[in-house]
Order: sequence, then structure tokens, then C-alpha cells
Amino acid sequence: MKKISLLGATGSIGQQTLDVIRAHSDQFQLVAFSVGQNVEQAIHIASEFHVPLISVANESDVQTVKNAVPAAQVLTGAEGLEAVASESGADVLVNAVLGSVGLQPTLKAIEKGIPIAIANKETLVTAGHLVMAAAKKYNVPILPVDSEHSALFQALNGENPKQIKKLVITASGGSFRDKTRKELEGVSVEDALNHPNWSMGSKITIDSATMMNKGLEVIEAHVLFSMPYDRIEVVLHKESIIHSMIEFVDTSVMAQLGTPDMRVPIQYALTYPDRLPMGSGKSLDLTEIGKLHFEKMDYERYKALDLAIQAGKAGGTATTVLNAANEAAVDLFLKKQISFLAIDEMIEKALEQHSIIATPSLEEILATDNETRRFVQNMVH
Amino acid sequence: MKKISLLGATGSIGQQTLDVIRAHSDQFQLVAFSVGQNVEQAIHIASEFHVPLISVANESDVQTVKNAVPAAQVLTGAEGLEAVASESGADVLVNAVLGSVGLQPTLKAIEKGIPIAIANKETLVTAGHLVMAAAKKYNVPILPVDSEHSALFQALNGENPKQIKKLVITASGGSFRDKTRKELEGVSVEDALNHPNWSMGSKITIDSATMMNKGLEVIEAHVLFSMPYDRIEVVLHKESIIHSMIEFVDTSVMAQLGTPDMRVPIQYALTYPDRLPMGSGKSLDLTEIGKLHFEKMDYERYKALDLAIQAGKAGGTATTVLNAANEAAVDLFLKKQISFLAIDEMIEKALEQHSIIATPSLEEILATDNETRRFVQNMVH
Repeated sequence: MKKISLLGATGSIGQQTLDVIRAHSDQFQLVAFSVGQNVEQAIHIASEFHVPLISVANESDVQTVKNAVPAAQVLTGAEGLEAVASESGADVLVNAVLGSVGLQPTLKAIEKGIPIAIANKETLVTAGHLVMAAAKKYNVPILPVDSEHSALFQALNGENPKQIKKLVITASGGSFRDKTRKELEGVSVEDALNHPNWSMGSKITIDSATMMNKGLEVIEAHVLFSMPYDRIEVVLHKESIIHSMIEFVDTSVMAQLGTPDMRVPIQYALTYPDRLPMGSGKSLDLTEIGKLHFEKMDYERYKALDLAIQAGKAGGTATTVLNAANEAAVDLFLKKQISFLAIDEMIEKALEQHSIIATPSLEEILATDNETRRFVQNMVH
Repeated sequence: MKKISLLGATGSIGQQTLDVIRAHSDQFQLVAFSVGQNVEQAIHIASEFHVPLISVANESDVQTVKNAVPAAQVLTGAEGLEAVASESGADVLVNAVLGSVGLQPTLKAIEKGIPIAIANKETLVTAGHLVMAAAKKYNVPILPVDSEHSALFQALNGENPKQIKKLVITASGGSFRDKTRKELEGVSVEDALNHPNWSMGSKITIDSATMMNKGLEVIEAHVLFSMPYDRIEVVLHKESIIHSMIEFVDTSVMAQLGTPDMRVPIQYALTYPDRLPMGSGKSLDLTEIGKLHFEKMDYERYKALDLAIQAGKAGGTATTVLNAANEAAVDLFLKKQISFLAIDEMIEKALEQHSIIATPSLEEILATDNETRRFVQNMVH
């Protein structure tokens, strides 16, 4: 029985992680989880899975949860997240929160030697060097959950990482892939949330539309696989069937394919190096799909991807700024306070005004993150 | 330095094996090889690679080679093939001969504990159970060289074979893929030898056109990966870019892709589990290709594939008959003694008249092989 703690239980990845645990209740046990505001869901999950440790975002919700689930310990705030991450006796932590709030609990879990199944790409983007250095120090595996990085991780199975020639990350193109940059001027929040292939949370769906999601993934791949940026390629592949590929030195390319089902990479992170049946999973039938398309990436059309790669190459706090500015700008867009194209512009301005710290400490990262968010918010308020 | 012996040095796979050895002369050394009639080539190879042990098909050629390469031992016939396979001190045997003549030398090499890089699919088709039983007994790896089986082998790297759901073998469709069965009636040898993707020997090119090549590959996959026939699927994929795939129990599909270059799987069999740079190899650029197509296989159109799968399911000497009848019929077609569609018909008749031996000995296999060839030849002579 593998004990699992879960940061971000009510989000899209969190819910699908619960599906995986539910489908293999003889293999997995949920021992702790966190939620944000969704107290009703928290009570539901705690009851279904008999979870002894719960964290909620607001102090004011603690008593409500305690009343409904008297057997459970209920915590709150940063302390709650860290307890869920590192003090639940878990065999693996699934970090499925959104944004850089996942960073500190992840570092705490690593210090306790707990393997991290990471869906929270912002943690790796904002402070990848700290996370990977800690993982190395405590000899803790970092298991990717993102479908692209899981594909790369699977393609690397049994291979020598030194024999990688390049990583090829596929991109669906997001909800606006058929629009020119000019046509993006008037698009609405509702338009942007309509992703063609994957059903995901709203932040990541907007990131897909801007292609910042792919930018964050390139940085994440750089961090996870120690790969220089000039050996990470992004290819447009609108069907999202090939989830990503690795070319090796002998020109052989290993790829992982599948139907768009996030439970597959989530489960793989929990079972690696083994696999378990995916009961209700749909087998890939390429003859039904008929054709797979591939196109060169247009970095002018998808400016956010270009900004991300530039920030990645600049290094240090540049990726912290990129990520914080993006989070703040997407939030403003979702609140209809800025236009779609303003997201890229605000990120670019945030990067321009920042003086990079080459090897930032955790404190410097958190300070940079805060300053950047304020900078972006001040552009509209 | 890895010492290599090579059965079938002048064929397409043999020549490309020499290319690989030449490109990595610091890693590989050719210590023995066999040729058929091509004495001039044999002398050339022996001189270039300073090979001490050579086998030629005809007794009458021995002296010619000896005169040209006085330092080498020159043998002939079955004895010569077996010496090359098992008595050269090789670390690996590349079996690249055509047809079931490769069987006995392979068994001899296995008995000596020499790993087999096998391009000679007929050996596995005609007597797979003997080869795999011997490999198991002497704990000798059988390393596939066929691009499809190398792809499956690479996709299986680091995985648990018990977690395979199915193998998916891709088929280009061969030189006549755009013709109906009716339109195949009058096709010539020259038409059939014009394969769209791969440059190969004439026997295998005809096998590609009839789809018997894919049938032999299905049987080979069954043998190599101990996979039941109902879990081996064939998919038409005209670009031959995805060389084959494995679906695992969690619906995840691992695939190996590449440009059509047989040196890649040959080299992989020689370097496994490592990889070496492919100096002059071309990287795969999917954006240049643009589209990959997939279609369901039509078993009525490609009757030879159906016959192969039926023979595989029947088991025992049925696959020996299938292979021998095919070799004999393709030979007759190449000599313009029968029509293209008569290949399938003759194989079907040979299978109909045969009484299957369920677990044949080597002698029974060789006898069946001989009888079948005579049966097919007698249909025209």
C-alpha cells in the first residue's frame, strides 16, 4: 500500500489523482490533502478516503471541517500545506497546487526524503535550481506529472541521459491556434477557456492559449532533465497524441503517445517504474484518428513562448519574474481587467524592469515573486 | 572492442553492418564473415577489415579467396557458416543471411553463448521455438535488427514485459499499396522491386509488396516477445516513420521513430543498452514531413499477411511451410516463372496439403522446409 499526500485536491489534477487512488484502492491510500476555499469538497474527500490530515486555506473554515470530520486533524495556511507535504507519513507527495505557493511545501517534503510527483510546474520554473539541488542532496526522485514531461520521462526509461541529443516537446497550439496574432486582439475569457484537446483548469487553459504553458514546460524540461535550451525543441502537433519525444545520439527517437487522459501520467508517477491497468482508460487507435500533423513553431505568433525561452536562457530570477508576472496577468485577464494580448505585454515589461539575481536564495525568490506580482497589478490599479 | 561475426556480408543488411563497423572502428572489429557467390566482394571486405575467417558458398571459390587473402582461413558450405557463427571468438553474431539457411549456424552460436543480432527473420519464423528455447537454456540475448522489432525492443527498454497490452507493428504497404488486388494481376518484377521508403534486397522488397514481410514480422514478434497473435496488431502507416509501438496496460504507448535508415537498428543491436552517435545519420524532422497517416489493415487485399497469421496461430511446422513456400514462390516470381498473385496462391496450397507437426525437431523442420520447396517448385516444373 503506497501512502499518498496531495496538495491541491480540488483542482483538475487533484481530482484526477483521486480518481487514480479510487480505481486502485488496494494499492494507494490518501493520507493527507490540501484544498483552497472549497470546504464542501474537502469534507467530501475526507469522508470518502478517511483522511487523517487536511489543510484548508482559510482559518475561518477550520472549525467547519473539524465538525464534519471529527477524526481528522485540520490545519491552515503555510503551516497546513507543509504538514500535508511532509508530516503525514506519505510515501509520495503529489504537488498539484497552482502557482508558486507549492514551492516551500515541496522543499519540506524533499528534506524528509519524500518523492515528489510534480504537476505544479510553477515550482520548478520559479525555483528549479533550489528544488533540484535539494532533490539531489536528499536523493529524492522528482516524478513529472505533466503529460509532456511524463512522456519525456517514459522515453528516457532504460536509457542513458548522456545519450540524449534533444528533447522535442509537442504543443497543441491551444484554443486560438487557428487565429493570427492580429485576430487575438478582441478575444474573450470564454473563448480562451475553450481548449480543443484537454480538459484542464482555467489558469492552464489560458496559458495554453498564450503558449506560456509551453514556455513553462520548456523551462521545466530544462530543470528536470538538465538540458540546455538549444537542445529543447517545440513542435506544433494539434492532435496532442504524441505527448513528447526524445532524440538520442543515434538519431533514434523515442516517443510516448496516448489519448488525452491526465490520469495516465498521474498514475505513472505513482507506479513508476511499474504500470497498473487503467480500467476505464481508452486505448489509442491511430487508424481512427487517421492523421497526425506537425508544424514548425511560430515564435512571433506565440510571443509568450519566446519570452519564456529568453527568461530561461537569462536564468536566475528571470524565470521567477516570468512566472509571477504571468500568474498575475492571467488573473487580471480572467477577471476581465486586461485584454488577452496584454498578458504578453505585461510579462515583457516585468522582465524588462527586473535586475536578475543569478543564483537567488529562497528568500530572494519569494521577494522577487512578490515584487513582480505587485508590479503587474500596479499597471492596472 | 566488440568482436563481430557476420553471416551474409554482401546483402543489404550485411553491407550496412559493415558501414556501422567502419564508422566505429574504435569500438567494433569484424572477426569473421560469410558470403554467397560474391567472391570479389569477399576479398574486398577481408582486405579492408583484416578478417581472419571467411566462408564462401562454393568449394570452387575457396582457392581464389585464399590466393587473394593468404592470411585468412577460408571455409565453405554449412561447415563454413557454422565456423563463422560460432568459432571466430566473436562477442556478437550478426545473422543477416536470407532464408532458413541461417537457422543451424544460429543454433551453434547460441550453444557457444554468443549473443545474436538477428536480421534473418526466416530463422525465427521457421524454427522460433527451437531458437528461443536454446537462447533461454544458454542465457543468450536475441537482439532484433529488423526496424520494427528493434522499435518494439527499444520501446520495451526499462519496462516490464508482463505489462504489455499489445504490440502495434506498422506497415508501409509496400510498392503496390495504391493498387487494388485486381490491379495486381499483371504487375511485373520490376514494378514490385520499386519500394517507396526503404532500400532493401529483392526478396524482402517482394515480401513487402505481398505484405508477407509483415506476416513474417508478426510471427517474429510473437516469437521474440512471447506475445499471443491476438495481441499483435498491424497498422498501415505509409511514411514508415513510427517503426512500431507497444501499448502498455495503462494505455500508454511507447514508440520508436526515425528516418528510414537500417544502420540505426543494426547499430542499436550492437551497442544495446547503450547508443553511439550515428555520424552521417539524418535527424527526424516531423515538421518537414508534416503529416503521418494511419489506416486499418485490409486482410483481403493483403492475403499473404492473413495466411501468415493463420499459420502462426496453427503453430508447429505451419510457419515452416509458410516460410519455405514463400521463399520458393518469390524465387519463381523473381525468375519470371509465375505471376505476382500466384505467390499467395502457392503458399496457400502448400499450407493446405501439409499435416502440421505441433512441436517439430530440427530434423523435422529441415525436412518440412525441403518438402515444401519441392512441392512449390513442382507446381511449375
